[in-house]
Amino acid sequence: MALIVQKYGGTSVGSIERIKNVACRIAKFQSSGHQLIVVVSAMSGETNRLLALAKEAQENPDPRELDVLVSTGEQVTIALLSMTLIEMGFKARSYTGDQVSIHTDNAYNKARILKIDEDKLRADLDAGYIVVVAGFQGVDETGNITTLGRGGSDTTGVALAAALRAKECQIYTDVDGVYTTDPRIVPEARRLKTITFEEMMELASLGSKVLQIRSVEFAGKYKVRLRVLSSFKEGGEGTLITFEEDDNMEQAIISGIAFNRDEAKITVLGVPDRPGIAYQILGPVADANIDVDMIIQNVGVDGTTDFSFTVHRTEFARTMGILKDQVQPHIGARDVVGGDKIAKVSIVGVGMRSYVGIASKMFRSLAEEGINIQMISTSEIKISVIVDEKYMELAVRILHKTFELDQAP
Amino acid sequence: MALIVQKYGGTSVGSIERIKNVACRIAKFQSSGHQLIVVVSAMSGETNRLLALAKEAQENPDPRELDVLVSTGEQVTIALLSMTLIEMGFKARSYTGDQVSIHTDNAYNKARILKIDEDKLRADLDAGYIVVVAGFQGVDETGNITTLGRGGSDTTGVALAAALRAKECQIYTDVDGVYTTDPRIVPEARRLKTITFEEMMELASLGSKVLQIRSVEFAGKYKVRLRVLSSFKEGGEGTLITFEEDDNMEQAIISGIAFNRDEAKITVLGVPDRPGIAYQILGPVADANIDVDMIIQNVGVDGTTDFSFTVHRTEFARTMGILKDQVQPHIGARDVVGGDKIAKVSIVGVGMRSYVGIASKMFRSLAEEGINIQMISTSEIKISVIVDEKYMELAVRILHKTFELDQAP
Repeated sequence: MALIVQKYGGTSVGSIERIKNVACRIAKFQSSGHQLIVVVSAMSGETNRLLALAKEAQENPDPRELDVLVSTGEQVTIALLSMTLIEMGFKARSYTGDQVSIHTDNAYNKARILKIDEDKLRADLDAGYIVVVAGFQGVDETGNITTLGRGGSDTTGVALAAALRAKECQIYTDVDGVYTTDPRIVPEARRLKTITFEEMMELASLGSKVLQIRSVEFAGKYKVRLRVLSSFKEGGEGTLITFEEDDNMEQAIISGIAFNRDEAKITVLGVPDRPGIAYQILGPVADANIDVDMIIQNVGVDGTTDFSFTVHRTEFARTMGILKDQVQPHIGARDVVGGDKIAKVSIVGVGMRSYVGIASKMFRSLAEEGINIQMISTSEIKISVIVDEKYMELAVRILHKTFELDQAP
Repeated sequence: MALIVQKYGGTSVGSIERIKNVACRIAKFQSSGHQLIVVVSAMSGETNRLLALAKEAQENPDPRELDVLVSTGEQVTIALLSMTLIEMGFKARSYTGDQVSIHTDNAYNKARILKIDEDKLRADLDAGYIVVVAGFQGVDETGNITTLGRGGSDTTGVALAAALRAKECQIYTDVDGVYTTDPRIVPEARRLKTITFEEMMELASLGSKVLQIRSVEFAGKYKVRLRVLSSFKEGGEGTLITFEEDDNMEQAIISGIAFNRDEAKITVLGVPDRPGIAYQILGPVADANIDVDMIIQNVGVDGTTDFSFTVHRTEFARTMGILKDQVQPHIGARDVVGGDKIAKVSIVGVGMRSYVGIASKMFRSLAEEGINIQMISTSEIKISVIVDEKYMELAVRILHKTFELDQAP
């Protein structure tokens, strides 16, 4: 008998009919002798409905009150799922984040989990209950309701699995695992049986929306076995996220290709090449609460250099304004240029640590298709390039083929 | 500076626009120097939406889970109202029943308030916050969410007013006070400036749906000044519910006329006139969880008597079945007869204590209209008659005129 934590997202519990399907799946697990904690999100559409109401009430909704509001979404689901399970003859009991208790810090809308009380849950599990917990929410030390930010239900699942030392945390979603790339772009894309934690981190941060990145970090930190499964397809084994490279039975050089057209690039031209310049450029951007992704600065020539970075596309105009008004005159740069018709394509794989020539293979295959690379950035297990937006799909397909991702290793 | 508790029902907060109206009214009170605790219900329609979802999930929804579910309704409203107040530049903070804390017993769906922690609220009020509290809900001693039953938001308001010794508890509703009778039936019906607590109790229990009866009991017990006001009409003073007859400036003999066509009557004929017979008749009815309202037994003749009572109309068939199958053969009664085409009409007034002839005046005016009285029941401050359903409106109009309720005292 093992303890399993299962997490079902909003689409999986989007109607009473779907909640009944989820209940059947849970029932099957419990009947086979497992103890079960089930974490659920709000029914699909509900969070957006609540956010729209908030927006009507207040242009920039008060963070504390926003959490009071949106946390009702998951509370509805836990009650409905528990009722469904009870109707089927099972013992089930629901808990809000406050009731569990999932203690968080006080950062409304993006709180971090600090501690989970396990006694109440353990007692229920031992008494044969299926425990149904509201994802995405917690409580701060003075009893205020907090939420973990969008997608935070994954983190709730992983945190519960860590606190109760569960055998596995299963994330049920509308895909049946992690793929080498998006099958809508490359039909030959293949489901990975396993993927390392680091690769998953890179894929998540690059825009593969399978798992919330913080939940993967959390799983890595507490060594929680994490599995991504489909809540619609029966019987699949999904993708297991592992924490040691040795676990990775199908040791490919490249595990997957991620892409993202949410970014815009900005280049400050003719920047004086002196200490502190990066801070002088990015300080005002950070002060405006704009997240920066890739940052590139090449060696200087003749005392000046060019400094490039990317931001989310929605922040492009605002960032350009800050640079033109505050930064350029201040540091004496020649010009600020940019564009938002770009895409980022990345290859990810722990295997590239031990193989040379991966980058050149990537660049050559893009060149052969006439795709110009505008920016390059690398980390230990990924190489990202910025290309013209219109070449994104072509680049993904070419690279998928180049690294033979359509074939099992 | 006085502390006022205001309660706004579901219709008053049924949309963001209406919430904004409520916020304006609150703002006016606060600006005039009052401390304010505001209790709100779920937006109109929301509780029914949630109940329908519950019904889809489970035929007889689990009581604990039902409270987890429906309590989200008020939680949504407190957040939206707080946001609206903050947007208007006020300091506001919301609390769920659990957060306040409103401690209740463990009777899910119909919990009773045991205790309210006032420290947190007092600190917020002293710091200049408008405190917005979710009505209808509380928490039991092990942290389970409970609800007080439908209409329980009134009780929350009164209980908060009692716990914090507020100057007044104002119940905002879609009527602008308590009327001598329903103006839809008698256009001359008049709003009462004051009504005694006992009269209000009788009117509430007789079907005037202005206030939830338990909230009136609660107000009586803790001597909370309770005022019913319209949330749509500005500037009215509503109806004040008083606790001493001397408070009642407009000492009328009769304060109002209540009516109700939700009942059915049942008579057990030829009941042996011996001790314990009432229990033998009503015991099985109570065991089936059927509420009994009026009970009438006249003196026996020749060793037998007739025993009558009324139940809610929806329980008529079930009650008849129980009496025919379990009671009649057991006690040897002659027959069981009944009907559900009846209505109850009652006159209520503390004045009748000191005046004789009220009952005969009532019966005479009904007789003059040819309305047959089927059953009579009296208490210290009310006289109720059961008449054929089709005469109900006529009876109400006649009595309203007979007791000159259209004229100010």
